[in-house]
Amino acid sequence: MKKSITELEDKSLSPHPMGVSNELSFALYGAANRMMQLHKPFLKPLGLTFSQYLVMLELFAGTPRTVGDLGTRLNMETGTITPILKRLEIAGKVTRARDVEDERRVLINLTSAGEALRDDVLAISGQIRSACKLDQKGAMDLKDTLNDLAWPATH
Amino acid sequence: MKKSITELEDKSLSPHPMGVSNELSFALYGAANRMMQLHKPFLKPLGLTFSQYLVMLELFAGTPRTVGDLGTRLNMETGTITPILKRLEIAGKVTRARDVEDERRVLINLTSAGEALRDDVLAISGQIRSACKLDQKGAMDLKDTLNDLAWPATH
Repeated sequence: MKKSITELEDKSLSPHPMGVSNELSFALYGAANRMMQLHKPFLKPLGLTFSQYLVMLELFAGTPRTVGDLGTRLNMETGTITPILKRLEIAGKVTRARDVEDERRVLINLTSAGEALRDDVLAISGQIRSACKLDQKGAMDLKDTLNDLAWPATH
Repeated sequence: MKKSITELEDKSLSPHPMGVSNELSFALYGAANRMMQLHKPFLKPLGLTFSQYLVMLELFAGTPRTVGDLGTRLNMETGTITPILKRLEIAGKVTRARDVEDERRVLINLTSAGEALRDDVLAISGQIRSACKLDQKGAMDLKDTLNDLAWPATH
Protein backbone atom coordinates (compact mmCIF):
# COMPACT_ATOMS: atom_id res chain seq x y z
CA MET A 1 0.00 0.00 0.00
CA LYS A 2 1.36 3.38 -1.05
CA LYS A 3 1.39 5.94 1.72
CA SER A 4 0.87 9.69 1.34
CA ILE A 5 3.53 12.07 2.66
CA THR A 6 1.13 13.18 5.41
CA GLU A 7 0.71 9.59 6.60
CA LEU A 8 4.46 9.07 6.67
CA GLU A 9 4.94 12.26 8.64
CA ASP A 10 2.25 11.26 11.14
CA LYS A 11 3.90 7.90 11.60
CA SER A 12 7.25 9.49 12.42
CA LEU A 13 5.60 11.16 15.43
CA SER A 14 4.62 7.87 17.05
CA PRO A 15 7.25 5.79 18.89
CA HIS A 16 9.47 3.96 16.45
CA PRO A 17 8.40 0.32 16.18
CA MET A 18 11.43 -1.82 16.99
CA GLY A 19 9.64 -5.09 17.68
CA VAL A 20 10.15 -6.85 20.98
CA SER A 21 13.95 -6.65 20.98
CA ASN A 22 13.83 -3.19 22.52
CA GLU A 23 11.24 -3.97 25.18
CA LEU A 24 12.13 -4.25 28.85
CA SER A 25 9.03 -6.39 29.44
CA PHE A 26 10.18 -8.90 26.81
CA ALA A 27 13.72 -8.96 28.24
CA LEU A 28 12.32 -9.65 31.72
CA TYR A 29 9.96 -12.33 30.46
CA GLY A 30 12.79 -14.00 28.55
CA ALA A 31 15.29 -13.73 31.39
CA ALA A 32 12.83 -15.24 33.90
CA ASN A 33 12.10 -18.14 31.55
CA ARG A 34 15.76 -18.78 30.80
CA MET A 35 16.55 -18.60 34.50
CA MET A 36 13.94 -21.28 35.25
CA GLN A 37 15.29 -23.45 32.41
CA LEU A 38 18.81 -23.06 33.82
CA HIS A 39 17.69 -24.46 37.17
CA LYS A 40 16.24 -27.64 35.68
CA PRO A 41 19.43 -29.74 35.45
CA PHE A 42 20.23 -28.87 39.08
CA LEU A 43 16.70 -29.48 40.37
CA LYS A 44 15.89 -32.67 38.46
CA PRO A 45 18.30 -34.90 40.44
CA LEU A 46 16.74 -33.53 43.65
CA GLY A 47 13.21 -34.25 42.41
CA LEU A 48 12.14 -30.61 42.72
CA THR A 49 10.29 -28.24 40.40
CA PHE A 50 11.27 -24.56 40.37
CA SER A 51 8.29 -23.60 42.57
CA GLN A 52 9.11 -26.40 45.02
CA TYR A 53 12.73 -25.18 45.06
CA LEU A 54 11.61 -21.69 46.12
CA VAL A 55 9.50 -23.21 48.93
CA MET A 56 12.44 -25.35 50.11
CA LEU A 57 14.72 -22.27 50.14
CA GLU A 58 12.26 -20.55 52.47
CA LEU A 59 11.98 -23.61 54.70
CA PHE A 60 15.78 -23.84 55.01
CA ALA A 61 15.71 -20.28 56.36
CA GLY A 62 13.62 -21.51 59.31
CA THR A 63 10.90 -23.99 60.35
CA PRO A 64 8.13 -24.47 61.35
CA ARG A 65 6.40 -22.02 59.05
CA THR A 66 2.76 -21.25 58.55
CA VAL A 67 1.29 -21.56 55.06
CA GLY A 68 0.31 -17.87 55.34
CA ASP A 69 3.86 -16.75 56.08
CA LEU A 70 5.31 -18.87 53.24
CA GLY A 71 2.71 -17.43 50.85
CA THR A 72 3.63 -13.87 51.84
CA ARG A 73 7.37 -14.47 51.43
CA LEU A 74 6.93 -16.25 48.13
CA ASN A 75 4.27 -13.83 46.87
CA MET A 76 1.95 -16.78 46.19
CA GLU A 77 -1.79 -16.99 46.87
CA THR A 78 -2.96 -19.80 49.18
CA GLY A 79 -4.49 -21.50 46.14
CA THR A 80 -1.06 -21.55 44.48
CA ILE A 81 1.11 -22.59 47.39
CA THR A 82 -1.18 -25.26 48.90
CA PRO A 83 -0.88 -27.71 45.96
CA ILE A 84 2.92 -27.20 45.94
CA LEU A 85 3.09 -28.04 49.64
CA LYS A 86 0.81 -31.07 49.16
CA ARG A 87 3.11 -32.40 46.45
CA LEU A 88 6.17 -31.85 48.67
CA GLU A 89 4.34 -33.74 51.44
CA ILE A 90 3.51 -36.66 49.11
CA ALA A 91 7.19 -36.69 48.07
CA GLY A 92 8.09 -37.05 51.78
CA LYS A 93 10.00 -33.76 51.97
CA VAL A 94 7.71 -31.77 54.27
CA THR A 95 4.98 -32.37 56.82
CA ARG A 96 1.74 -30.36 57.01
CA ALA A 97 -0.06 -30.25 60.36
CA ARG A 98 -2.73 -28.10 62.02
CA ASP A 99 -1.24 -25.82 64.66
CA VAL A 100 -2.46 -27.22 68.03
CA GLU A 101 -2.51 -23.67 69.42
CA ASP A 102 -4.50 -22.25 66.51
CA GLU A 103 -6.53 -24.70 64.43
CA ARG A 104 -6.86 -22.20 61.57
CA ARG A 105 -3.14 -22.36 60.87
CA VAL A 106 -1.27 -25.10 59.03
CA LEU A 107 2.37 -25.54 60.03
CA ILE A 108 4.97 -26.78 57.59
CA ASN A 109 8.07 -28.63 58.73
CA LEU A 110 10.92 -30.32 56.91
CA THR A 111 11.20 -34.11 57.13
CA SER A 112 14.65 -35.64 57.44
CA ALA A 113 14.48 -36.43 53.71
CA GLY A 114 13.74 -32.74 53.07
CA GLU A 115 16.50 -31.62 55.43
CA ALA A 116 18.91 -33.92 53.60
CA LEU A 117 18.55 -31.73 50.49
CA ARG A 118 19.76 -28.59 52.30
CA ASP A 119 23.36 -28.42 51.06
CA ASP A 120 22.48 -29.32 47.48
CA VAL A 121 19.60 -26.82 47.34
CA LEU A 122 21.64 -23.99 48.88
CA ALA A 123 24.50 -24.65 46.45
CA ILE A 124 22.32 -24.13 43.35
CA SER A 125 22.33 -20.33 43.52
CA GLY A 126 26.12 -20.19 43.19
CA GLN A 127 26.11 -22.80 40.43
CA ILE A 128 23.61 -20.70 38.46
CA ARG A 129 25.64 -17.52 39.01
CA SER A 130 28.74 -19.19 37.73
CA ALA A 131 26.84 -20.61 34.71
CA CYS A 132 25.73 -17.01 33.93
CA LYS A 133 29.25 -15.70 34.62
CA LEU A 134 27.88 -13.40 37.32
CA ASP A 135 29.82 -12.73 40.50
CA GLN A 136 27.90 -12.38 43.75
CA LYS A 137 27.99 -8.58 43.54
CA GLY A 138 26.70 -8.54 39.96
CA ALA A 139 23.85 -10.87 40.92
CA MET A 140 22.95 -8.83 44.01
CA ASP A 141 23.04 -5.54 42.07
CA LEU A 142 20.69 -6.94 39.44
CA LYS A 143 18.40 -8.38 42.14
CA ASP A 144 18.30 -5.00 43.89
CA THR A 145 17.55 -3.16 40.64
CA LEU A 146 14.63 -5.53 39.98
CA ASN A 147 13.28 -5.30 43.52
CA ASP A 148 13.71 -1.53 43.70
CA LEU A 149 11.58 -0.80 40.65
CA ALA A 150 8.63 1.30 41.76
CA TRP A 151 6.13 -1.52 41.24
CA PRO A 152 2.68 0.02 41.41
CA ALA A 153 -0.08 -2.00 43.07
CA THR A 154 -1.92 -4.04 40.45
CA HIS A 155 -5.00 -5.04 42.46
CA MET B 1 16.80 -31.23 68.05
CA LYS B 2 20.04 -30.33 69.86
CA LYS B 3 23.03 -30.03 67.55
CA SER B 4 26.62 -30.90 68.35
CA ILE B 5 29.31 -28.24 68.02
CA THR B 6 30.70 -30.11 65.00
CA GLU B 7 27.33 -29.99 63.24
CA LEU B 8 27.00 -26.26 63.89
CA GLU B 9 30.50 -25.65 62.54
CA ASP B 10 29.74 -27.69 59.44
CA LYS B 11 26.58 -25.67 58.86
CA SER B 12 28.49 -22.39 59.01
CA LEU B 13 30.54 -23.54 56.02
CA SER B 14 27.52 -23.91 53.77
CA PRO B 15 25.91 -20.82 52.22
CA HIS B 16 23.80 -18.94 54.73
CA PRO B 17 20.12 -19.72 54.16
CA MET B 18 18.34 -16.41 53.60
CA GLY B 19 15.17 -17.74 52.03
CA VAL B 20 14.08 -16.47 48.64
CA SER B 21 14.50 -12.76 49.40
CA ASN B 22 18.19 -12.95 48.49
CA GLU B 23 17.76 -14.93 45.27
CA LEU B 24 18.24 -13.37 41.86
CA SER B 25 16.07 -16.11 40.33
CA PHE B 26 13.17 -15.21 42.65
CA ALA B 27 13.59 -11.48 41.93
CA LEU B 28 13.49 -12.19 38.18
CA TYR B 29 10.48 -14.48 38.46
CA GLY B 30 8.65 -11.88 40.57
CA ALA B 31 9.61 -8.95 38.35
CA ALA B 32 8.47 -10.77 35.19
CA ASN B 33 5.12 -11.62 36.82
CA ARG B 34 4.57 -8.10 38.12
CA MET B 35 5.50 -6.70 34.72
CA MET B 36 2.87 -8.89 33.04
CA GLN B 37 0.27 -7.86 35.64
CA LEU B 38 1.12 -4.19 35.01
CA HIS B 39 0.34 -4.58 31.31
CA LYS B 40 -3.16 -5.96 31.91
CA PRO B 41 -5.06 -2.67 32.37
CA PHE B 42 -3.46 -1.33 29.17
CA LEU B 43 -4.03 -4.51 27.15
CA LYS B 44 -7.56 -5.33 28.25
CA PRO B 45 -9.22 -2.41 26.39
CA LEU B 46 -7.34 -3.52 23.25
CA GLY B 47 -8.51 -7.13 23.66
CA LEU B 48 -4.94 -8.45 23.80
CA THR B 49 -3.18 -10.90 26.12
CA PHE B 50 0.48 -10.29 26.98
CA SER B 51 1.66 -12.91 24.46
CA GLN B 52 -0.57 -11.42 21.77
CA TYR B 53 0.86 -7.99 22.63
CA LEU B 54 4.39 -9.23 22.00
CA VAL B 55 3.34 -10.67 18.64
CA MET B 56 1.65 -7.38 17.67
CA LEU B 57 4.80 -5.43 18.62
CA GLU B 58 6.78 -7.59 16.23
CA LEU B 59 4.20 -7.19 13.45
CA PHE B 60 4.27 -3.39 13.83
CA ALA B 61 8.01 -3.57 13.16
CA GLY B 62 7.25 -4.99 9.71
CA THR B 63 4.88 -7.22 7.73
CA PRO B 64 4.42 -9.70 6.15
CA ARG B 65 6.28 -12.04 8.48
CA THR B 66 6.73 -15.78 8.42
CA VAL B 67 5.67 -17.82 11.45
CA GLY B 68 9.25 -19.06 11.67
CA ASP B 69 10.71 -15.56 11.82
CA LEU B 70 8.19 -14.44 14.45
CA GLY B 71 8.98 -17.52 16.53
CA THR B 72 12.70 -16.78 16.36
CA ARG B 73 12.27 -13.13 17.36
CA LEU B 74 9.85 -13.98 20.17
CA ASN B 75 11.81 -17.04 21.29
CA MET B 76 8.67 -19.16 20.99
CA GLU B 77 8.37 -22.67 19.59
CA THR B 78 5.98 -23.14 16.64
CA GLY B 79 3.64 -25.02 18.98
CA THR B 80 3.48 -21.94 21.21
CA ILE B 81 3.16 -19.21 18.63
CA THR B 82 0.69 -20.93 16.26
CA PRO B 83 -2.26 -20.92 18.72
CA ILE B 84 -1.53 -17.26 19.56
CA LEU B 85 -1.62 -16.36 15.87
CA LYS B 86 -4.82 -18.39 15.36
CA ARG B 87 -6.52 -16.48 18.16
CA LEU B 88 -5.36 -13.15 16.70
CA GLU B 89 -6.78 -14.28 13.34
CA ILE B 90 -10.16 -15.22 14.90
CA ALA B 91 -10.17 -11.79 16.59
CA GLY B 92 -9.74 -10.24 13.14
CA LYS B 93 -6.36 -8.62 13.90
CA VAL B 94 -4.11 -10.68 11.60
CA THR B 95 -4.37 -12.85 8.52
CA ARG B 96 -2.57 -16.18 8.06
CA ALA B 97 -1.91 -17.37 4.53
CA ARG B 98 0.35 -19.89 2.81
CA ASP B 99 3.17 -18.20 0.94
CA VAL B 100 2.38 -18.68 -2.77
CA GLU B 101 6.13 -18.83 -3.50
CA ASP B 102 6.84 -21.42 -0.83
CA GLU B 103 3.92 -23.55 0.38
CA ARG B 104 5.81 -24.58 3.53
CA ARG B 105 5.73 -21.04 4.87
CA VAL B 106 2.80 -19.29 6.50
CA LEU B 107 2.77 -15.50 6.14
CA ILE B 108 1.25 -13.26 8.77
CA ASN B 109 -0.16 -9.84 7.92
CA LEU B 110 -2.00 -7.20 9.92
CA THR B 111 -5.64 -6.52 9.06
CA SER B 112 -6.88 -2.94 9.17
CA ALA B 113 -8.37 -3.69 12.61
CA GLY B 114 -4.93 -4.87 13.73
CA GLU B 115 -3.22 -1.87 12.16
CA ALA B 116 -5.68 0.41 13.98
CA LEU B 117 -4.15 -0.72 17.32
CA ARG B 118 -0.67 0.50 16.36
CA ASP B 119 -0.51 3.79 18.27
CA ASP B 120 -2.15 2.37 21.40
CA VAL B 121 0.11 -0.70 21.42
CA LEU B 122 3.29 1.31 20.83
CA ALA B 123 2.35 3.75 23.60
CA ILE B 124 2.13 1.02 26.27
CA SER B 125 5.88 0.70 26.78
CA GLY B 126 6.18 4.35 27.85
CA GLN B 127 3.10 4.10 30.06
CA ILE B 128 4.61 1.11 31.86
CA ARG B 129 7.96 2.90 32.28
CA SER B 130 6.25 5.88 33.80
CA ALA B 131 4.19 3.60 36.11
CA CYS B 132 7.48 2.05 37.28
CA LYS B 133 9.10 5.50 37.51
CA LEU B 134 11.78 4.41 35.05
CA ASP B 135 13.17 6.80 32.48
CA GLN B 136 14.04 5.46 29.04
CA LYS B 137 17.72 5.14 29.92
CA GLY B 138 16.97 3.26 33.14
CA ALA B 139 14.72 0.84 31.27
CA MET B 140 17.28 0.32 28.47
CA ASP B 141 20.13 -0.24 30.95
CA LEU B 142 18.11 -2.88 32.79
CA LYS B 143 17.07 -4.51 29.51
CA ASP B 144 20.73 -4.61 28.39
CA THR B 145 21.86 -6.10 31.72
CA LEU B 146 19.24 -8.84 31.38
CA ASN B 147 20.04 -9.57 27.74
CA ASP B 148 23.81 -9.47 28.32
CA LEU B 149 23.80 -12.18 30.98
CA ALA B 150 25.91 -15.06 29.71
CA TRP B 151 22.90 -17.32 29.22
CA PRO B 152 24.25 -20.81 28.65
CA ALA B 153 22.39 -23.04 26.18
CA THR B 154 19.82 -25.16 28.02
CA HIS B 155 19.03 -27.74 25.34
